[in-house]
Amino acid sequence: MRTHYCGDVRLTDVGTTVTLYGWVDRRRDHGGVIFIDLRDRSGIVQIVSDPQRTPDSYAQADRLRSEYVVKIVGRVSKRPADSVNPKLATGDIEIYADHIDVLNTVRQQLPFAISSTENEPVREEVRLRYRYLDLRRERMARNLQLRHRVVQAMRRFLEDEAGFIEVETPILTRSTPEGARDYLVPSRVNPGEWFALPQSPQLFKQLLMVAGCDRYYQIARCFRDEDLRADRQPEFTQLDMEMSFMDQDEIIDLNEALICHIFKTVKGIDLPRPFPRLSYQEAMDRYGTDKPDTRYGLELVDVSDILKDSGFKVFSGAIAQGGVVKILPIPNGNDRISNVRIKPGGDLFQEATTAGAKGLAYIRVRDNGEIDTIGAIKDNLSPEQKAMLLKRTGAEPGHLLLFGAGDRATVNKTLDRLRQTIAHEFDLIDPTAIHLLWVVDFPMFEWNAEEKRLEALHHPFTAPHPADLDDLKTARAQAYDLIFNGYEVGGGSLRIYQPELQRQVFETIGLDEATAQEKFGFLLEAFEFGTPPHGGIAYGLDRLVMLLAGEDSIRDTIAFPKTQQARCLLTGAPSSVEPQQLKELHVTPAKPAKTTAKTKA
Amino acid sequence: MRTHYCGDVRLTDVGTTVTLYGWVDRRRDHGGVIFIDLRDRSGIVQIVSDPQRTPDSYAQADRLRSEYVVKIVGRVSKRPADSVNPKLATGDIEIYADHIDVLNTVRQQLPFAISSTENEPVREEVRLRYRYLDLRRERMARNLQLRHRVVQAMRRFLEDEAGFIEVETPILTRSTPEGARDYLVPSRVNPGEWFALPQSPQLFKQLLMVAGCDRYYQIARCFRDEDLRADRQPEFTQLDMEMSFMDQDEIIDLNEALICHIFKTVKGIDLPRPFPRLSYQEAMDRYGTDKPDTRYGLELVDVSDILKDSGFKVFSGAIAQGGVVKILPIPNGNDRISNVRIKPGGDLFQEATTAGAKGLAYIRVRDNGEIDTIGAIKDNLSPEQKAMLLKRTGAEPGHLLLFGAGDRATVNKTLDRLRQTIAHEFDLIDPTAIHLLWVVDFPMFEWNAEEKRLEALHHPFTAPHPADLDDLKTARAQAYDLIFNGYEVGGGSLRIYQPELQRQVFETIGLDEATAQEKFGFLLEAFEFGTPPHGGIAYGLDRLVMLLAGEDSIRDTIAFPKTQQARCLLTGAPSSVEPQQLKELHVTPAKPAKTTAKTKA
Repeated sequence: MRTHYCGDVRLTDVGTTVTLYGWVDRRRDHGGVIFIDLRDRSGIVQIVSDPQRTPDSYAQADRLRSEYVVKIVGRVSKRPADSVNPKLATGDIEIYADHIDVLNTVRQQLPFAISSTENEPVREEVRLRYRYLDLRRERMARNLQLRHRVVQAMRRFLEDEAGFIEVETPILTRSTPEGARDYLVPSRVNPGEWFALPQSPQLFKQLLMVAGCDRYYQIARCFRDEDLRADRQPEFTQLDMEMSFMDQDEIIDLNEALICHIFKTVKGIDLPRPFPRLSYQEAMDRYGTDKPDTRYGLELVDVSDILKDSGFKVFSGAIAQGGVVKILPIPNGNDRISNVRIKPGGDLFQEATTAGAKGLAYIRVRDNGEIDTIGAIKDNLSPEQKAMLLKRTGAEPGHLLLFGAGDRATVNKTLDRLRQTIAHEFDLIDPTAIHLLWVVDFPMFEWNAEEKRLEALHHPFTAPHPADLDDLKTARAQAYDLIFNGYEVGGGSLRIYQPELQRQVFETIGLDEATAQEKFGFLLEAFEFGTPPHGGIAYGLDRLVMLLAGEDSIRDTIAFPKTQQARCLLTGAPSSVEPQQLKELHVTPAKPAKTTAKTKA
Repeated sequence: MRTHYCGDVRLTDVGTTVTLYGWVDRRRDHGGVIFIDLRDRSGIVQIVSDPQRTPDSYAQADRLRSEYVVKIVGRVSKRPADSVNPKLATGDIEIYADHIDVLNTVRQQLPFAISSTENEPVREEVRLRYRYLDLRRERMARNLQLRHRVVQAMRRFLEDEAGFIEVETPILTRSTPEGARDYLVPSRVNPGEWFALPQSPQLFKQLLMVAGCDRYYQIARCFRDEDLRADRQPEFTQLDMEMSFMDQDEIIDLNEALICHIFKTVKGIDLPRPFPRLSYQEAMDRYGTDKPDTRYGLELVDVSDILKDSGFKVFSGAIAQGGVVKILPIPNGNDRISNVRIKPGGDLFQEATTAGAKGLAYIRVRDNGEIDTIGAIKDNLSPEQKAMLLKRTGAEPGHLLLFGAGDRATVNKTLDRLRQTIAHEFDLIDPTAIHLLWVVDFPMFEWNAEEKRLEALHHPFTAPHPADLDDLKTARAQAYDLIFNGYEVGGGSLRIYQPELQRQVFETIGLDEATAQEKFGFLLEAFEFGTPPHGGIAYGLDRLVMLLAGEDSIRDTIAFPKTQQARCLLTGAPSSVEPQQLKELHVTPAKPAKTTAKTKA
C-alpha cells in the first residue's frame, strides 16, 4: 500500500522505507546511475538506482521510459549538499529504489511531452484530443485541483457559515426564459414532446424559496446553445444561490464574505471589505461598460455640454440626435500612437469601427495648451471650448484625446474597447492586482430597437427599486453584478414576489397574459400561495476559476471541454446515431447524417 | 434582520426581543388571544397576540391565515407550566408579538393542508403538481435536509479523510456502453449529429485515472431512458468514485469507512466493521438473489442431490436438464398459509408464476416426521429421501416447505420473491435493523440465451480475478456490490488496464475490433499511454437517502422528481416546442406533436 504521495516526502522521512506509485516524468542515466523523476498528482520526487547500491532495482530502472507507470519501494536519503534542488518541495531528499515494479508501459509514441521540464507548446486541438495526457501536465493538474478547492471553499462557507442547503434541480426540464437557445431532448415515452436542458435553475430556485427552503445553493450545470465565443461553452457551471427574507445589502454583504473566504482559502489573500459599488450609470459614464476593469485609469469624460453647439457637425449633430460626445484621454498617447493607427486603415480605427463607430476623431495635446487635430475640429473649436475640454479631461502635454460621437451605446462600446486595448498595449495593468466591485442600480428595461419594445435587462422576475414603482419603464432594478478585473463573475437580483407587480412587469415588456401563462404559468401560480421575499445570485464558476488560475480561457479550467464548434475532440461527440434510436424517439433527421468519422480525425 | 430561525428559540432567550420570518402553520383564537404557530425550515415556534399585552400586533394577528408569510418582532417569554409542549423543541417558550408584518398572503385555496398537525394524506399527483407546497411539509422538508446532510458527509469524508478531488464530467457527451437507452440531444451546429446524456461518468472517470487524478469523486447526474419502474427516474444521482493503485480489499475498506462516516454523521449510528462479505455464489444459493435482505432468515436449501432420481418428474426432470430443486422452508407456515394460496389462483402461486415458475410444489411438515403434500410427491418420496429433506431443511412440525424446480435462474427468482413476500407478511423484519454486506466474486459473464452469447455481468471494463485468467469464460470478476437491507446501494469493480486483456474480454463477449473501436476507441487508445491500475464504485444517492429516510419511494428524496410516465407534473415537461426550434436543430417530428396542455391538467 502507498505510504506517501511523491510530492510529500521530506527530510523527516530520511531513513524510512516508502512505497510510492506514479509516472516516470523523466529518466536520466548519469554514467550508470539512473535518476528517475517520479510524478503523481502531488508533485515529483527523485528516485536513484545504480548497480552497486540498489542491485535489485537496477535492471527495471534501466528499462523505464517516460510515462511508464511504476511502483517503487525505497529508502529515503538526504541529498548531497551540491544536488539539493530548492525549486522542488522534495528537493532535499532522494529515494534509493529497492524494488521497482513496472505496472504499465507506454505502447505508442506520446503525442507531446508531459514533463514540466519540457515546457513544450502544444496546439490546443492536440491537447483536447489527448486530454487525459494534457491533464497529467503540471499546469492543467494544478487548474483542476484549484477548481476543486474553489468549489470546496464555496460549499464550506455556504454550509458552515451561512446555513445554505444544497438542492439538486432537474436537468431534463422545461425551457427557461433566459433568452438563449435551448438544448432539446426528445421524449420517447411522450411522442412529439421535448425536454429542454436548463439555461439556469432560475425557476426551480425561486420555487424552492416558495417551498420554504430559505437558503439554497447548487453547483449547477447549465446549458446554452449559443454560437460560441472564446470564453463560452455549451455546458457550463454556476454557483447558484437563492435566499429568502434578505434585502439587497444583506445579500451583497453575505456574498462579499463568501468571495473573501474563497480568496483567503485558495490564494491566502485577505481582500478589503466592503467592495466598492458603482451604479450602472456611473460605470457606463466613466468606463463605457457595466463591467469595468478598474485596475487602471483611462476614464472616459463626457464633453457633450461643451460641444453641443460645435460647428463640427459630427459632434453637434450626434448630440442633437440625443447622442453624446465622450473623450478617452490617453497620457503619453502622443508618443506611442501614430496618426496612421487612428485614421482609416489603422488598427485603432478598425477597433472603433468594429464597435460601431463611424470614425475616430482625436486631439493631440501639445505644450502650452496647443493642440493638433484635423482642421474641421480645430477650426470649429473656440478658445473657451478648447480650454474647457483640456480642463475637464485633465489633459497634459503629450495626452492623446480620442473622441466618440454618436448614440450613447455605440460611443460607450467604442471607447470601452479602445480603453482596454490601450491599457494592454501601454502595460497599465498590474497582473497581481485584484479589483472586485459591485455594479448596482441597473435599469429594469432596455429598448430593443429591432422589436420596438422594452425588454428586461436581466430577466423578467427582477424586482424594481421600491422608490421607482411610479414609472416602471424608467425604474432601477434591485440587481447587482460582481465584477472581477473587468469580467462579470456573478450577477443576481431581488425577485418580484407579488403577482400584481409581476403582471405589471410583463405588461411593460409586452408579454401578454396568455404567453406568460404558457411560458411560466406554474411559477406565477406558485406565487399565489405565500411566496416569501427572496433574491439570489449566480457565479460563473468556469470564469472565476479561470481568473484565479491566471488563465485566458475557461477551457483550461474544465476537465473535458468542448471546442468553439461545440465538439468534444476526445470522444468525438456529437456523433451520428443508429436510425433505430431516432425511430424510437419519434424524430427523423431533416438532413441525412454526415458519415464522417470525427473520432479518428 | 432575522435574529433566529423559528425552531431555534430557547429558554435562554427569554427576555430578549427576536425577529423571525416564516409561514403561519396554524392560527388559533382562544377567546380573544391569538396563538400562531410560526414555521420556517427549522421548525415551529408559538407566537401570542392579544389586545392587552400586544396591542400593536393584534389587528395583524387577527387577519393572519394559514401559509401567510410574516415577519414577527417579539419578546421571548417562558410558557406557563401547564402549556409547556415537550413535543416541540421550542415548547418551553412563546413569543409575544410586538410587531407583525404580513409580507405576503395566500390568494388561492390551498390544494392541501401543509401543517404537520393536519397529517392529511394527499395523492401523489397533487403533491407533485404543487411540489413547492409539498416541500413545505415537515416530512419532505426533513427529507431534503437529510439528502443535503448525506451528500455533505460523503464530500467531507472523501475530501478530508481520503484525498479525493471532485471533477465535473460532461453532460453533453457521447453514448456510454451501459446497455440502457440513451437520451439524445440534436446538435444545431453539427447537423445530423447527436449528443447523448451520460448513463454514468464511467468512461470519463477512467480517463481521469489515466490523467493521473488518482482519486476522483463526483455527485453525478446520470440519465437512462428506461421504461420506468417504481423506484427509477429518468435522471438520477450517483456518488461516483474512481481511484488508482488500490486493490479490491483496499477499496472495500475505504468504502466501509465512508459508509460508517455517513451513518455516524447523519444518524448517530456506529456500524460494526468489517461488513460481512458474501460471494455471489453463496448469495444466490442461500437467498436466490445477489442483493439479499439478511435482516431475516428464511434461507433457501438446495435439495437437488436428494431428488435427482425422484420418480416425480417435475423434480428429476428439472435436474436432468441441468436445473435445480430448492426449498424455501417457512417456520409456522402451516398455520398461516392455506393450500388455497399455494395452488393455482392463489396469491403465492401467482407470485411464483410471475417469477417464471410453472407451479408451486409444497410439503407441510406435521408431528412425528409426518408430511402432507400432493400424492405425486408423497408417492415418489422414499423414507430416506424424506428424512434427508427434513434434516437438511431443519424442518420442524408446523414448517411449510415451498419448492422451486427448474432452471437455476427461475428457481432463484421464484423463491427470492416468495421469501420476501412471506418475510413481510410474517413481520419478520426488524424495521430498525441495518444490514450492510458486500457481495463479491461475481462471474465476469452471464449467458444471454436470446442472443446466444456471453455478456458482461457488470460492464466490459471489469477486471477478471487474476487467478481465473486461464479461462475467462468462467472467470470471477473483481467486482463488489454493497447491499443495504436487500437493496443494492452501490456497485463497482477493478478495471482492466492492459489493452491485451481488454481485447480478450471483448472477444469473449463477441464484440469485434471494429465495433469496439467505434464505441470506445478513445478509451482503448488512452490505455496505450501509461494507464494505472484502477477501480471504482458508484452509489445510488436517491436510493441511499430513501433508505436512510425510511421512505418507500425515491421520489420522496428528490426535490423535483418525475412521474413513472417520465413527466414533471409541476412544469409540464416534456412539452411541445416551436417548429422553428426543431428546424434549427435539423429534425422533424416523426409524428405531429399532440396539442394537449399538460400543464393545466
